[in-house]
Amino acid sequence: MRWVTVATEQGPRACGVWQGRYVDVNAADSRLPSTVRGLLALDADGQREAKAAVEQGKTSYDPATSRLLAPVPDPQKIICIGLNYRDHAEESGMPVPPEPVLFSKYPSALIGHLAPIVLPSVSNEVDYEAELVVVVGRGGRFIPVEHAMKHVGGYAVGHDVSARDWQLNKPGKQWMAGKTFDTFAPIGPELVTADEVADPHKLGIRLRLNGETMQNSNTNQLIFPIDQLIAYLSGIVTLEPGDLIFTGTPPGVGMARKPQVWLKPGDVVEVEIDGLGVLRNPVVAEKKAG
Amino acid sequence: MRWVTVATEQGPRACGVWQGRYVDVNAADSRLPSTVRGLLALDADGQREAKAAVEQGKTSYDPATSRLLAPVPDPQKIICIGLNYRDHAEESGMPVPPEPVLFSKYPSALIGHLAPIVLPSVSNEVDYEAELVVVVGRGGRFIPVEHAMKHVGGYAVGHDVSARDWQLNKPGKQWMAGKTFDTFAPIGPELVTADEVADPHKLGIRLRLNGETMQNSNTNQLIFPIDQLIAYLSGIVTLEPGDLIFTGTPPGVGMARKPQVWLKPGDVVEVEIDGLGVLRNPVVAEKKAG
Repeated sequence: MRWVTVATEQGPRACGVWQGRYVDVNAADSRLPSTVRGLLALDADGQREAKAAVEQGKTSYDPATSRLLAPVPDPQKIICIGLNYRDHAEESGMPVPPEPVLFSKYPSALIGHLAPIVLPSVSNEVDYEAELVVVVGRGGRFIPVEHAMKHVGGYAVGHDVSARDWQLNKPGKQWMAGKTFDTFAPIGPELVTADEVADPHKLGIRLRLNGETMQNSNTNQLIFPIDQLIAYLSGIVTLEPGDLIFTGTPPGVGMARKPQVWLKPGDVVEVEIDGLGVLRNPVVAEKKAG
Repeated sequence: MRWVTVATEQGPRACGVWQGRYVDVNAADSRLPSTVRGLLALDADGQREAKAAVEQGKTSYDPATSRLLAPVPDPQKIICIGLNYRDHAEESGMPVPPEPVLFSKYPSALIGHLAPIVLPSVSNEVDYEAELVVVVGRGGRFIPVEHAMKHVGGYAVGHDVSARDWQLNKPGKQWMAGKTFDTFAPIGPELVTADEVADPHKLGIRLRLNGETMQNSNTNQLIFPIDQLIAYLSGIVTLEPGDLIFTGTPPGVGMARKPQVWLKPGDVVEVEIDGLGVLRNPVVAEKKAG
């Protein structure tokens, strides 16, 4: 199944993608949740019921006119992994890190497919990063690596937008501020459930800036694969349904180019992962409301 | 008003503290929210109704037998400010940072008054940090400093538990992992609404470890005061009702002592802030469930 969250007049609604429409799950069966986070928390029986509800549901939205939010717009956690592609480490001449590097974004940074990435007026160095996002299904703590894949609810295409000047040049050297400006976490269009992805470690991942390919790699380059990440992370925090794990970016980011490339108003960024879809977001300048 | 979140058989319930009892707001008036985050999002009329409901409510819990969660157990953000006390900077011989240092914790780290702080088996250097927590009331983006205090919903006593080995010695030098282990964000007992705090920049703040005073300062030592923090943060992210801002810790942390002091099973940590109460948490060893 492919899940989306549609912005409707009744608020965000979890929908299954079925026969070219977005079918409202909770409208089809009011015992089922209206959020994708709720759907991810269901057991196997509940998942089957949700799928059946979508296949027979009547309330649906036209993808051509629907506005998508991030598939999970309200996660408890967005966990990001730094420097997790072997080819990127080699390109950078950096050693392979002995442990995952962790940082975070806030849910307020999430946007969906086609929503604009807003360039903060306070940054001059906004960069792109294509990423595979792992969405936690069953939660847990101290998850053994051999059971870790059972805790994956699904996958989505993600974009770790990064203000390099804020990430790297501020007192304390903490990356978070530069990673969590509003709109800096595009995800989508869809969450693809784990059963539909044969091997998440064998997916081409590409990023195009205004049609030009800037990143082009494969998830087989992940230094810490998904099961190891889940085991490691669950040794620190309780993972919960809907938690998002940004798994790191391959080489080709704007900062590493000569000359460097920064996002500018009018740009269009597309991130594509085999089997998961294309996440497209235009880039706009900030208009201050205050 | 003082708000708490009580763990009940019906789940977490927002309660006002009234005549020595915890009075359930939503049970008193079903139009009112059952969460403190929901209460913080109310306008001034709603706040008055909530207060009136508490003062006439019948469903209440006995503080002596109630288990408290963090006053806001489900925030969208936990924003932490590093190195924000002038006397701590002086003690450390470090320059006053020109901008706030930001990092984060996940909501899974939150615990309430009297709940145990669990020492991770993977850390040998767990430290304490007394902190004033600012709770956002009205949300916003690009909040001017002169209006910032209107966005404060209230204050609470907080404890920024920190695994120094994980905070400072990991590849990438990101602090987050060491700050966000489960149970590393005790807050409480209560959220005290802003109208009950005459001057949040003139509050004594103390931490006692097994009865011995280890930190003893005043919020008048804050390098970046609350209005500046809110203005700065809202230039990066949209602030939302219930967001928690840990405002930094004064001198006296265990890491800076000679010999260094680390938390151990059996310890009891108390953080006290004038007018806000005493947050007490015992320290226990981790029992791995997996």
